[in-house]
Amino acid sequence: MSEYKILSTINSPADLKKLEKNQLKALCTELRQYIIEQTANNPGHLGASLGTIELTVAIHYVFDTPTDKLVWDVGHQAYAHKILTGRRKAFENNRKLNGISGFPKMKESPYDAFGGGHASISISSILGMAIASNLSGDKNRNHIAVIGDGALTGGEAFEGLNHAGNAKANVLVILNDNRMAIDKNVGAMSKHLLKLSTSTTYNRFKTKIWDVLSRKSLRARSVMQNTQNMVKGGLLKESNLFESLGFRYFGPIDGHNVLHLVEVLSRIKNLKGPKLLHCITTKGKGLKKAEENQTLYHAPGMFDPISGNILQPEFDPYQIEKYQKVFGTTIIELAEKNKKIVGITPAMASGCSLDMMMQTFPDRCFDVGIAEQHAVTFSAGLATDGYIPFCNIYSSFLQRAYDQIIHDVALQNLHVIFCIDRAGIVGEDGATHHGAFDLAYLRCIPNMIVSAPMNEIDLRNLMYTAIETKKPFAIRYPRGKGVLSQWKNQPFSLLPIGKAVEVKKGENIAVLGIGHITNNVIKADEILQKEGFNIGIYNMIFLKPIDEQLLNFVCQNYNCIITIENGTKIGGLGSAVAEYMKQNNYNNKLVVLGIDDMFIEQGSVQQLQELCKLDTNSIVETIRNI
Amino acid sequence: MSEYKILSTINSPADLKKLEKNQLKALCTELRQYIIEQTANNPGHLGASLGTIELTVAIHYVFDTPTDKLVWDVGHQAYAHKILTGRRKAFENNRKLNGISGFPKMKESPYDAFGGGHASISISSILGMAIASNLSGDKNRNHIAVIGDGALTGGEAFEGLNHAGNAKANVLVILNDNRMAIDKNVGAMSKHLLKLSTSTTYNRFKTKIWDVLSRKSLRARSVMQNTQNMVKGGLLKESNLFESLGFRYFGPIDGHNVLHLVEVLSRIKNLKGPKLLHCITTKGKGLKKAEENQTLYHAPGMFDPISGNILQPEFDPYQIEKYQKVFGTTIIELAEKNKKIVGITPAMASGCSLDMMMQTFPDRCFDVGIAEQHAVTFSAGLATDGYIPFCNIYSSFLQRAYDQIIHDVALQNLHVIFCIDRAGIVGEDGATHHGAFDLAYLRCIPNMIVSAPMNEIDLRNLMYTAIETKKPFAIRYPRGKGVLSQWKNQPFSLLPIGKAVEVKKGENIAVLGIGHITNNVIKADEILQKEGFNIGIYNMIFLKPIDEQLLNFVCQNYNCIITIENGTKIGGLGSAVAEYMKQNNYNNKLVVLGIDDMFIEQGSVQQLQELCKLDTNSIVETIRNI
Repeated sequence: MSEYKILSTINSPADLKKLEKNQLKALCTELRQYIIEQTANNPGHLGASLGTIELTVAIHYVFDTPTDKLVWDVGHQAYAHKILTGRRKAFENNRKLNGISGFPKMKESPYDAFGGGHASISISSILGMAIASNLSGDKNRNHIAVIGDGALTGGEAFEGLNHAGNAKANVLVILNDNRMAIDKNVGAMSKHLLKLSTSTTYNRFKTKIWDVLSRKSLRARSVMQNTQNMVKGGLLKESNLFESLGFRYFGPIDGHNVLHLVEVLSRIKNLKGPKLLHCITTKGKGLKKAEENQTLYHAPGMFDPISGNILQPEFDPYQIEKYQKVFGTTIIELAEKNKKIVGITPAMASGCSLDMMMQTFPDRCFDVGIAEQHAVTFSAGLATDGYIPFCNIYSSFLQRAYDQIIHDVALQNLHVIFCIDRAGIVGEDGATHHGAFDLAYLRCIPNMIVSAPMNEIDLRNLMYTAIETKKPFAIRYPRGKGVLSQWKNQPFSLLPIGKAVEVKKGENIAVLGIGHITNNVIKADEILQKEGFNIGIYNMIFLKPIDEQLLNFVCQNYNCIITIENGTKIGGLGSAVAEYMKQNNYNNKLVVLGIDDMFIEQGSVQQLQELCKLDTNSIVETIRNI
Repeated sequence: MSEYKILSTINSPADLKKLEKNQLKALCTELRQYIIEQTANNPGHLGASLGTIELTVAIHYVFDTPTDKLVWDVGHQAYAHKILTGRRKAFENNRKLNGISGFPKMKESPYDAFGGGHASISISSILGMAIASNLSGDKNRNHIAVIGDGALTGGEAFEGLNHAGNAKANVLVILNDNRMAIDKNVGAMSKHLLKLSTSTTYNRFKTKIWDVLSRKSLRARSVMQNTQNMVKGGLLKESNLFESLGFRYFGPIDGHNVLHLVEVLSRIKNLKGPKLLHCITTKGKGLKKAEENQTLYHAPGMFDPISGNILQPEFDPYQIEKYQKVFGTTIIELAEKNKKIVGITPAMASGCSLDMMMQTFPDRCFDVGIAEQHAVTFSAGLATDGYIPFCNIYSSFLQRAYDQIIHDVALQNLHVIFCIDRAGIVGEDGATHHGAFDLAYLRCIPNMIVSAPMNEIDLRNLMYTAIETKKPFAIRYPRGKGVLSQWKNQPFSLLPIGKAVEVKKGENIAVLGIGHITNNVIKADEILQKEGFNIGIYNMIFLKPIDEQLLNFVCQNYNCIITIENGTKIGGLGSAVAEYMKQNNYNNKLVVLGIDDMFIEQGSVQQLQELCKLDTNSIVETIRNI
């Protein structure tokens, strides 16, 4: 354990403000050390939070939070913020069950002005607060949104800029430009930011402003005014997107120079209207390995706090791989055989393992940046021309593209294959990231095929089948490991659309499962068999179209039907079976297992499955009680 | 009937290409006349299509459609396109049952490269096609997206620009800048476009380019290259958002000068890479009244083709008003009493009647432009500060903000009130616009209250109740008229959350309805009573939480339960009742009425209700057959 001489005295931003300016650098060092030490043992989003330490200290030093409002986009940049705002000790339980969330959360602290773990929402939410303060007649409150260059490519951020740039509202957008999303940031905006950061003409001009300002002369304010006019008058040589949208642009400045940040923020604090401060930061700053491999250290798992070396997970004698690896391996196999296959990801290439295909077929893979809506419509455009897009998105982020799934894919009946990753309970990322709704929100869309593999072979066969079935096709699977050691290079089978598989015939009780969670039923069955139960188990594979023949069969041959799904109980498999039974006058008992109608917080997958009664023991218990 | 000397000879763009350039202007006049004549009797989206006539003629004259790909954003600009591409005669049945769609539709014509009626998708879809042509090794195909300045504010358009601006793809974005969405366009982008259009420095510079080019010298291409370098070298004085994003920007030019358009398009046609041509057009061009009142003539209904005067609808002796009017009147009443109430609309102010509140409380209303995602998160931001936002959006467009409803409102349990307009079948706008999914996609979200009024008084009381209930609250109601003549100034009642109302006690059969469609049940009941039936009728008002006490009661007192909803049968009221009955072992018969699992095309509301068996006669028939 390191000593935290300064940090240990900071229980709120009020304590921070008592520090002398020359203590801030030391505080940053301690903060960085503390975050590294904690996340080394208790994994979290290391890289982004190491990059915003100086920014966080400077903001809380200069502004009057929580009266002044501060919103962190995505929110995994906010560890230093959490630690400085009364949660230093609580940070030991970051992302744990009953601990604090890994993202800002309004219920957790008044300093978290807005919650959330999805990207690109900070400008919209902070503008709501800024307009609220206008309406209340409070013209002096400050409103700060910190947004990464990755999140800036999301369409909602632009919608927010478009409104804020023309609103008479007191908004400061701080652009935390680290050139990264999880993977390297892409697109024209990213290029534009680089140009702004490196243009000598531009910087010479900007430096002049800062030079004058740093003399702290009384004339600083009027100089600022003049420079604004100079900009308007045409001295500015580069197109600047933010100025196009009505923002006063400041920067770029070094986001790791805490004293300079304090100075700059103090100076622009009292300028009214929409402002943008462009800060250049380094993801993983201060941990050499993290700086060198920023994608890997976005969320590295356990690591050695000194060397930064990532600790290898325990040896798995069964060598079970993650579904992500299965996806990545399989798409390459398929793409080798079919030149029309292309891969699309909105900035989740490494998370989803599409990066594997990117290595093999760089020209046929498209990381479109954080832009789920575009990812889906772009895929639809490719499909109109006979290409077969695998659009690869986390379940909870696919919510962003719901209209595009309906309007651009399903309505036009285009052959887009959605590989929906992180479906169901995701664990420590918590409420913002669980993929709890996809089965429900996809089932009501006409023309969609909705499926979920129970294991690696299912996933491979579904991917293969989706290519042959020229319709909108969704395959959802969870984060993490499968169950089979033998799946590589297995021959592909064409699955009949809408056909379930009987895993085990039984009597009295039939369990219909969709997806990987069905493996818990198999484990439960091992226990139940010893107690004399003989349940039937069915792997639905398809939620839509549902296997009506099978439903008929189980209704005619079992007294009680149990459905199990790793998703909300409302609108998914349980509902589909209830609808079918009512429609066909089957009066068998129906028990629906799934996520209750509530948001589930963070915890390990096992803990959260227990909470939702989806774990093996709970299933055993449920069946015993019938 | 006017004579259409030229137009009558054009059955495809091939015919158009046979014309001499000097005939194009006359063709435009005829096209304009034809669209006016047709839409005068068969209402449609007049304004936007009158504004794009010259553009449409020029595009099909210069480019080689359908080999070259052309996508119309939103699509109601596409009437001239439809008429020129083999659908001149079919246009007489524009928006009618079994006629052609009012929007581009792939199944309808190979010239409709992509379908759709939602905004901001054209750049994403055309880029998909452009990348497809790269992959296929076809470097010469052209890809044109025509997008309005209104649609450009939607986040997905920016996501598309961000990708396209950095992709080596052959994309021409034509910006149809008429300064309007349905209402006047708003936001910083709009201001920026105006600046680009009016800046003398900028225009002088641009004019120079065009002058040189118009000399048709062999050097034109190299001059173009030089001017590009001049831009890069810093001669350009204004920030240009499109150039910031990697586009070559051309214009602004007069979008009604067909010969100039032909010339400009011919010249930039062969330049590779991302290009944007900025055209200035007038919505409603050529019909004086439509030019003067662009919002009203966006979709004016029936009008006199000569004077442009809008024909008044038949006199209604009962003076029944639209739900929109009820909303508009009521929100003013409520806002007068409660200063915290604010209104938010993403560019649907006149369609939803929020414009009424805008007149009375301009400072408390926010038209954020076509930006549904921002509208919802911005509302959430306002709610964090104790304001009570009424976020007013069409049902099918709210799909755009699905993630924001879940992540920014429901998860954070913020007091945002969604007034969801155009819910259920909307009629002639067809498949892209029916609000068929909201009940299903909202019911699965925790913390949400989901409701629908059966009449004007219900709507008023729900709006009032939503204010008092400090939770996310959705109220969905259809386009068009209610049923009561007396609703104005009626005192407000606080509705108990999740309580249904017994409209009429009956026996054997109970019909549970949600929303305005329940009135069809009442009309059916009048017929059925004469035949000796005595059905029970229940106005659910709330889909979520559902009235379990009532469900118990009807299950215990009726043999058969019928549910009716103006939305998909999957996941809405029918599912909720099926789930409840299975959960509680009720074996009564259940019949679910709603929209089948398919996309419903255009037609009158009555025709489409008949198609879905939701009209009065179908309900009678259903009940007779039980």
